[in-house]
Amino acid sequence: MTRMIGSSKNPPAGHRLSANRFARIVSTGSVVPDEVVTNQDLIDEFGVIATDRAVRYSIGISERRRAPAAASAAQYLERAARQCLERAQLAPEALDRIIYARLFGDHFVPATALRVLERLGLRRGIPAMDISAACSGVMHALEMAISFINAGDDYVMVLGGDRTVLSPQVAVTRDTRTLFLNGDGFAAVLVGRSETRSFRARYLYTDSDLRDFAFIPLGTELLNGTQDFGPHMFAMTMPDGRQIHQSVLDSCRIISQHLFDLSGLRMDDIDFVITSDQTHLVWKDQLAALGVPESKSISCFHKYGNTVAAMVPLNLHEAFVTGAIVPGMKVLMMGHGAGASGGGFIFEA
Amino acid sequence: MTRMIGSSKNPPAGHRLSANRFARIVSTGSVVPDEVVTNQDLIDEFGVIATDRAVRYSIGISERRRAPAAASAAQYLERAARQCLERAQLAPEALDRIIYARLFGDHFVPATALRVLERLGLRRGIPAMDISAACSGVMHALEMAISFINAGDDYVMVLGGDRTVLSPQVAVTRDTRTLFLNGDGFAAVLVGRSETRSFRARYLYTDSDLRDFAFIPLGTELLNGTQDFGPHMFAMTMPDGRQIHQSVLDSCRIISQHLFDLSGLRMDDIDFVITSDQTHLVWKDQLAALGVPESKSISCFHKYGNTVAAMVPLNLHEAFVTGAIVPGMKVLMMGHGAGASGGGFIFEA
Repeated sequence: MTRMIGSSKNPPAGHRLSANRFARIVSTGSVVPDEVVTNQDLIDEFGVIATDRAVRYSIGISERRRAPAAASAAQYLERAARQCLERAQLAPEALDRIIYARLFGDHFVPATALRVLERLGLRRGIPAMDISAACSGVMHALEMAISFINAGDDYVMVLGGDRTVLSPQVAVTRDTRTLFLNGDGFAAVLVGRSETRSFRARYLYTDSDLRDFAFIPLGTELLNGTQDFGPHMFAMTMPDGRQIHQSVLDSCRIISQHLFDLSGLRMDDIDFVITSDQTHLVWKDQLAALGVPESKSISCFHKYGNTVAAMVPLNLHEAFVTGAIVPGMKVLMMGHGAGASGGGFIFEA
Repeated sequence: MTRMIGSSKNPPAGHRLSANRFARIVSTGSVVPDEVVTNQDLIDEFGVIATDRAVRYSIGISERRRAPAAASAAQYLERAARQCLERAQLAPEALDRIIYARLFGDHFVPATALRVLERLGLRRGIPAMDISAACSGVMHALEMAISFINAGDDYVMVLGGDRTVLSPQVAVTRDTRTLFLNGDGFAAVLVGRSETRSFRARYLYTDSDLRDFAFIPLGTELLNGTQDFGPHMFAMTMPDGRQIHQSVLDSCRIISQHLFDLSGLRMDDIDFVITSDQTHLVWKDQLAALGVPESKSISCFHKYGNTVAAMVPLNLHEAFVTGAIVPGMKVLMMGHGAGASGGGFIFEA
């Protein structure tokens, strides 16, 4: 982390959270599709020149999950939300709001969050909407949830994840590097009102200099007549993997430093680290940069791959259910989004 | 408004705004493309059987604006944001956050808000993201802005509008009713910290029973192999215009009643009404339902058409610049989104 890229050399100052109602993470949920797709499965399916051993070595992934073509994101998100509510022993009726951090969503209009609302049987329409901020989407949604609870909500359900990353029609447009990278995963985080302060600091930033590090063409620019229509519209292009790697490490440094400054805490005070693991190596390098042993963090990348907005909450859920995070621990949680957007929190579990 | 449709018979209770930092609308901005497209222009261009007179009579629209095919939403949003900042005599550097209520956005990834950030020359990356909630998107974004200011931000820029509604490739897929309905427009609302209380109440709700009232197919369900790819993916389908009309009137009643209950104010206390004018008739019928003369509201529908998320802020801007709203007035502002999502505020200008 000696050099820095983009405009992130001068990230914005953080704001202390002005709160008269505190929020906390009440519970989490996690759902991955049943189908396990190994590296060899992809090698056979797409006829690419690669070996399982080489993929494991270079990217650190063994397998990932794939949703059936006919599945909707909403049906997985419903299951993640229900699991999350059950773990909190709450009925869906307790919710004041649903925020879905989407990549694509099932449709443009209506919001996929509305479909989840319907699937939860919640007919007294609480606010529900989709937000778009790629890999850091759940971080943005969590900040919104904290702010909404501060302003009067009691329970906000944050959802993340999507089902497109391994669609055969999209995957076929990929190169051998990105073909193995992604997986389908879905996660829920329930944020609720707390009598005591759990979130010690929050910090979010963007870096528009890095806007082209990861790019999905779908949008109105397709209507300019310069591009064909087809499944490739859904494909994420990442022209420079090494720069993305570097930008995630920059983001890790920027966010953690601001969170320490805002909270008055130091790395020594932190019991556990949750972060976005776009690859196995980027997870390891973040921990090395923070001076944290791997035993104080967790990564599902080897089995789920890069699940975009679901990465961070899938890791958080894994840490909760395995007992890696227990009540009272101080957690540094970060998400780094495609180079261009990142955010994080320090909270007491 | 004797019958009610959907699950909106039982809308959720509203929450009082728990605030320790007040917010207010500081200024607005509005940009429409230069090209004026008359009804006759569309009749000639698409060879539909209609007359300007019939379109004016049935929908209440004379003309609308159309962005060039090569234009991006970001470039118009930048202009709206700059105008808004200039009216407030603030530099872009004053902003803590940008929220763009999009329909499509220029691309899926990165967020169009990031492109706006870049165009504003704001290289110290404040948080910026897109949200998706169709016609009521700016209402959702304003609630977020108020909550973010409550939590510590000083200035939040809310943007709305998109450039796709009249793309020739999309328009050609439309029927004669929807062909005339839409227009391209872009608006900005700057929300800032206030020493005194401006927002008296806020209320947002959704109605998942109405999820199919307005539908844009673009999304992962296209990858199921059941649909072809093409410009029609961007087309909004509204199978039942009468039900949408009714749902907007339901939404008007639900939102206004909750805002009155939450604020302790009555319609008699309100000096001006801003609402979404999906058609001229739906604007008139809302005012009739509220018992408000047309002189106490404003609609740009006749000249701009249905601009989706930009409708409400375009009307708000028009009211500010024409002096229809002056400081001290109490304003009821609502947005009703495609039947399935609505929200509003009572604020003191």
